[in-house]
Amino acid sequence: MKFNLEKSYEIWERTPFVLRGLLNGLHQDWIVRNEGSETFSPFDVIGHLLHGEKTDWPNRIKMILEKGTTSEFVPYDRFAMYNESVGKTLEQLLDEFEEIRMKNMHWVRSLNLSEVDFERKGIHPKFGEVTLRQLMATWVIHDLTHLSQITRVMAKQYKEEMGPWLEYFRIMSF
Amino acid sequence: MKFNLEKSYEIWERTPFVLRGLLNGLHQDWIVRNEGSETFSPFDVIGHLLHGEKTDWPNRIKMILEKGTTSEFVPYDRFAMYNESVGKTLEQLLDEFEEIRMKNMHWVRSLNLSEVDFERKGIHPKFGEVTLRQLMATWVIHDLTHLSQITRVMAKQYKEEMGPWLEYFRIMSF
Repeated sequence: MKFNLEKSYEIWERTPFVLRGLLNGLHQDWIVRNEGSETFSPFDVIGHLLHGEKTDWPNRIKMILEKGTTSEFVPYDRFAMYNESVGKTLEQLLDEFEEIRMKNMHWVRSLNLSEVDFERKGIHPKFGEVTLRQLMATWVIHDLTHLSQITRVMAKQYKEEMGPWLEYFRIMSF
Repeated sequence: MKFNLEKSYEIWERTPFVLRGLLNGLHQDWIVRNEGSETFSPFDVIGHLLHGEKTDWPNRIKMILEKGTTSEFVPYDRFAMYNESVGKTLEQLLDEFEEIRMKNMHWVRSLNLSEVDFERKGIHPKFGEVTLRQLMATWVIHDLTHLSQITRVMAKQYKEEMGPWLEYFRIMSF
């Protein structure tokens, strides 16, 4: 499937509400447990999405449009939320994410991006030249794969309770 | 995490609404594409969940409670939805799933299951003896892993568009 702005808004604009429907009001055991050491809990993932929304995705779009290949993206801090989420509830993080996501969507729409813009380039600190199209497709994928991760992490909390059925669920061993 | 009925209702009862929030109104390209031959699209998954809700989960619970180990479960038809979903829209499937899931929840609650009941056994056609606890934990996991699958399948539709970032998304190669 080719990158398409309208199809992308369909995902970006629903993510905060899908996350809320999925997680709001759940027992803490579904929220704070992870898949083992150095893995994310659903709570961690929401903090990670919030951090990306504040500092990564919009900044990188801005850099491509304003500086092109004359300047390098700031590396993404994938663990920033371990500090930033301290003392916050899941509901607070979900509220903040919704607010910033919706502001970002308003801003992206205001850019009136065209097919020509999607070919504009920036410099990734590791990959070198990347296009706006690649960045924006990855932003959509980032939403969806973290949703996939959250539900997988939740499923794994019952792994010890499912008995022989484990054999049919390849995803539980990811 | 130990199997717990209240924590399980939290998942079962929200699944129809999470699916609706995730899929309703999306462009068909997000709904009908899969991960390659013999894999499920999000549309297929909803039909599969609906089939399980009608014929599998409640029937197996009933069999354990009424027949115990004197009779074997009917094998699950994992591909029944390829016929049953024909001519239906996603919205119809989501409506049907919500209705039957909520009826099933009403029925499960009416059983007033206790810790003793969770140790009752039935006979799985492949695994032999399984407990009600294992069956019910697997039902919760089945919801969550299919949510995980749907979002992964959707993410993969942009795989060709993400450029070098693919390297950071191990889940895209599952």
